Amino acid sequence: MQTDTLPTTACPVVTAFDWVPDFARGLVRDLRVRWAFEEIGRPYEAKLLGAMNPRPDDYLDWQPFDQVPAFADGDLHFFESGAILLYLGQQDDRLLPTDPQAQWNAISWLFAALNSVEPHIGRLVSYDVFLADKPWAKEARVPGAALVEQKLKRVTAALGDKEWLAGQFSIADIAMVTVLTNLRHTDMVESHAALATYVARAKARPAYQRALDAQLGDFADAPPQQ
Amino acid sequence: MQTDTLPTTACPVVTAFDWVPDFARGLVRDLRVRWAFEEIGRPYEAKLLGAMNPRPDDYLDWQPFDQVPAFADGDLHFFESGAILLYLGQQDDRLLPTDPQAQWNAISWLFAALNSVEPHIGRLVSYDVFLADKPWAKEARVPGAALVEQKLKRVTAALGDKEWLAGQFSIADIAMVTVLTNLRHTDMVESHAALATYVARAKARPAYQRALDAQLGDFADAPPQQ
Repeated sequence: MQTDTLPTTACPVVTAFDWVPDFARGLVRDLRVRWAFEEIGRPYEAKLLGAMNPRPDDYLDWQPFDQVPAFADGDLHFFESGAILLYLGQQDDRLLPTDPQAQWNAISWLFAALNSVEPHIGRLVSYDVFLADKPWAKEARVPGAALVEQKLKRVTAALGDKEWLAGQFSIADIAMVTVLTNLRHTDMVESHAALATYVARAKARPAYQRALDAQLGDFADAPPQQ
Repeated sequence: MQTDTLPTTACPVVTAFDWVPDFARGLVRDLRVRWAFEEIGRPYEAKLLGAMNPRPDDYLDWQPFDQVPAFADGDLHFFESGAILLYLGQQDDRLLPTDPQAQWNAISWLFAALNSVEPHIGRLVSYDVFLADKPWAKEARVPGAALVEQKLKRVTAALGDKEWLAGQFSIADIAMVTVLTNLRHTDMVESHAALATYVARAKARPAYQRALDAQLGDFADAPPQQ
């Protein structure tokens, strides 16, 4: 990245959208980063982007996929919600345990949420939301849903009777719970009692509630020019 | 994970399959880890799993999705190719730069390969390989291919005239190049000259060649009982 033209920040900055349609509210990935900040009580600034807040000309130097969140802390600028969670976790043991085995369990589950679980859920959401008008969407979702179900069973089994994936609450839970929330239009999580309890336990945390309120509060009520 | 029953290893261990069908050879994710080890000249042991080498009874405690690679180093046991690459990167600056901005660029691109690029490629592969006999597969691949194309354009633009994603060669390139290789049944990478050159540059590295030879050499020629 060519980040030498990006500003040095006094307070960490997370980019977020200034408006998204209803189905995406509470799902946009800046929520993960807001949640982590709220867990450790660290202030941050949400830099809103969208039709009402045009992206900086050099935004692609900061976030090459033109998405959110991008992140800045001092003169460091980088992107990807997983990388930002890891960065914050490395600074605070309330987000990432320091015991080596527990730490690598948490990092394994962080990657698992994003690379072994989210891709399958994302595919199902595409059939149910973005491609729902295609004549083949209902048929295509059948093998897609079977794969998601298989992953949910594995996560539920691994969780067992533990409260959190890596023993203590960590960035792994922030990632997994926000990934699983993409299934809120289905009853797939609820059909696994222990998994549903886990998600509810996470969402009962005051930090999650504050982060969600902050994301929802930052959205304009209606898209511009409607 | 309950890893207290897993053995302490003298040499790092990576799990891999003892046989996969031809279309998967050179694509299985232990290749990423083997490549990282070869870059730093560190010995490792491939623990083969499959019909000829039954999984240990407690394999799900080590790799909860019943996949490869799982990883062990001394008494540490964890999983996910992204986590293993990060672990090895943190131990050797030939895999992960130490300058903070360069390091977080590399970690951003590691996550980007696995969470912003691979999910879309995985979906396309499912239409082209696993679901190819479905009457809707050809139609479903059209929007899938468009999304992959969009991501390839973004990666190509971000790469610009750089040799490697984060300046120096890093775990980000190991992840991105092995992710892009899943498109080898198409000409999608080749249609972006700079991206094709980048992938060829990576695959010309002797460490990649050694890692690939090791993965291919560990596969039995035919599945058992055929």
